[in-house]
Amino acid sequence: MDIRFEKSLKLKEKIKDENKLGFGTYFTDYMFLMDYDEKNGWNDPRIVPYGNIEIQPSAMGLHYGQTIFEGLKAYKNDGKVYLFRADENFKRMNESNDRLCIPPVDEEFMMEALKKLIDIERDWVPDSKEASLYIRPFIIATEPKLGVHPSDSYLLMIILSPSGPYYKDGLAPMKIYVEDKYVRAVKGGIGTAKAGGNYAASLKSQIEAEENGYFQVLWIDGVDRKYVEEVGSMNIFFVTDDGIITPELNGSILSGITRKSIIELLKAEGQKVVEKKIAIDEIMDLHKKGKLLEVFGTGTAAVVSPVGELFYNGEKVVINNGEIGKVSQHLYDELTDIQWARKKGPEGWQIEV
Amino acid sequence: MDIRFEKSLKLKEKIKDENKLGFGTYFTDYMFLMDYDEKNGWNDPRIVPYGNIEIQPSAMGLHYGQTIFEGLKAYKNDGKVYLFRADENFKRMNESNDRLCIPPVDEEFMMEALKKLIDIERDWVPDSKEASLYIRPFIIATEPKLGVHPSDSYLLMIILSPSGPYYKDGLAPMKIYVEDKYVRAVKGGIGTAKAGGNYAASLKSQIEAEENGYFQVLWIDGVDRKYVEEVGSMNIFFVTDDGIITPELNGSILSGITRKSIIELLKAEGQKVVEKKIAIDEIMDLHKKGKLLEVFGTGTAAVVSPVGELFYNGEKVVINNGEIGKVSQHLYDELTDIQWARKKGPEGWQIEV
Repeated sequence: MDIRFEKSLKLKEKIKDENKLGFGTYFTDYMFLMDYDEKNGWNDPRIVPYGNIEIQPSAMGLHYGQTIFEGLKAYKNDGKVYLFRADENFKRMNESNDRLCIPPVDEEFMMEALKKLIDIERDWVPDSKEASLYIRPFIIATEPKLGVHPSDSYLLMIILSPSGPYYKDGLAPMKIYVEDKYVRAVKGGIGTAKAGGNYAASLKSQIEAEENGYFQVLWIDGVDRKYVEEVGSMNIFFVTDDGIITPELNGSILSGITRKSIIELLKAEGQKVVEKKIAIDEIMDLHKKGKLLEVFGTGTAAVVSPVGELFYNGEKVVINNGEIGKVSQHLYDELTDIQWARKKGPEGWQIEV
Repeated sequence: MDIRFEKSLKLKEKIKDENKLGFGTYFTDYMFLMDYDEKNGWNDPRIVPYGNIEIQPSAMGLHYGQTIFEGLKAYKNDGKVYLFRADENFKRMNESNDRLCIPPVDEEFMMEALKKLIDIERDWVPDSKEASLYIRPFIIATEPKLGVHPSDSYLLMIILSPSGPYYKDGLAPMKIYVEDKYVRAVKGGIGTAKAGGNYAASLKSQIEAEENGYFQVLWIDGVDRKYVEEVGSMNIFFVTDDGIITPELNGSILSGITRKSIIELLKAEGQKVVEKKIAIDEIMDLHKKGKLLEVFGTGTAAVVSPVGELFYNGEKVVINNGEIGKVSQHLYDELTDIQWARKKGPEGWQIEV
């Protein structure tokens, strides 16, 4: 399919101080759109000036949560622009699509479309340290009908947001509240999909954690209410005296691409990494025995994010004296070096635009 | 607050054959809108010509499922128009709002707004038998920002859809597939809220049931995977030789207004109704012993909907010879008589517009 291009008559002024970008607040000059209907399939791919969309009030996506999204970044180094494992994002997009009954996209075409969009917007990719261009592909159901049923039409969009460093003052350990009241997702549900409903379910817990001085929550499984699942916007890893452990993909956890990359990096380094069921009590116990050395989260936004404190069931657990651990720092440095192409990464991870 | 009114320059032609209306497909000439921002709270309530809305691509509601809705109907009888327990809908709207971190609405004002809208659109309320005007209030998060956080702005809308009878050929028993693979919602999640994410989670199961010749699914709880929860768009009741039983509101079931009304009607008639945990095995066992007399669903769309067959774990259970049971028929007649004001209902149920 040809991607049509509609030139903007007036380009926006770029934000000079990239430290003030924040996250997901500013958007670039262009966006990518593509429609789906039953007769034509995915059609009319186009790059057009960024702006409001028109939608019918009865569009299914506004009522029944039939929406999915992805999140990734473009990085600039020495004037060149790179994507990081973007193929994995479109693969996961199709997994989310499948769970939400949204027709699949052509992953190779999506990669082509994304590259074309990024190429046009390459001046928008920040070049100050740890700032990047956040990329948000998403799909919403647009059929104007109120019966609960998969939509027969969709809109796919990619919007771009130049974003500042996740940690304004450099990498810093975060305090995490272990959530034992609310549940994010459960096996048999849509927890493995990057679907709006999972995030909607997280808001109240997130707010309550913030009110108590915590940065994010660590979700516990909804069935046994004892196994660790994931952090608000990250997967989680525990560094123990006997290797690194992380919750296995159990059917309710999001399969993070940063998670996968960290596991692969660790294995390539010959480190012991085990994906398994992890009870929160096991973590508390490891800590008591002095065997919990570090905890860190992984995600597109923060890359690798050290955890300095866990609060669970009335108990505060300070990890590594609230300082950044060696493993966390090493993995952060290693992965960001690869993402910004300051170092050669494994085959296929770095995609130059 | 004054509700401003913007007159439409051209009214639509109404659908002559009300049997062809279907559900949620046609919309009336006007819609109600109201905005929320942190400074002004809910503001600028207005009734304007029905049409597309403009939304920013980064609006949170499109990404993180921060949306809720309600569903109710207006009924016409002898030229007069009635709402049925609409106050309960706005009460539940605020319960959904609370769970999804959406600011509460003024329930009395919402009732006033709805009455004003229905009054303007009274000619759109169908007057053929069992056709009605479906009312869809809903709220979407509109803050144009990609961080996962409750939005600081919202749009509330009410749209109206003249809808035909649920059963074109009269009340008919439906076949229900007992879902043992997918899970709709779990305690601690958002199952009790009328939020998009719950419906998104139901689509795949619904499609698979339809492919197997079933009308809807009966959800089983996500924790023990044995207790009956609700049907796709309905709550469920079982008529046994020892009274009527229905799943208790356990924190993952939607609190249906039709459910509540049926329980109240049955109690007023002196019938035995018990809300309790009900294992699917208990139902299968009652059937084997000949003690399961009828099964029916309750919801705004179908009112009371007899179940003629349950399929669970490879076993087909035919209920009441696949025919409409006496209790189901009686409750259907009773409740529709009240909704259409052919009969006087309990205090406050019938609201004349």
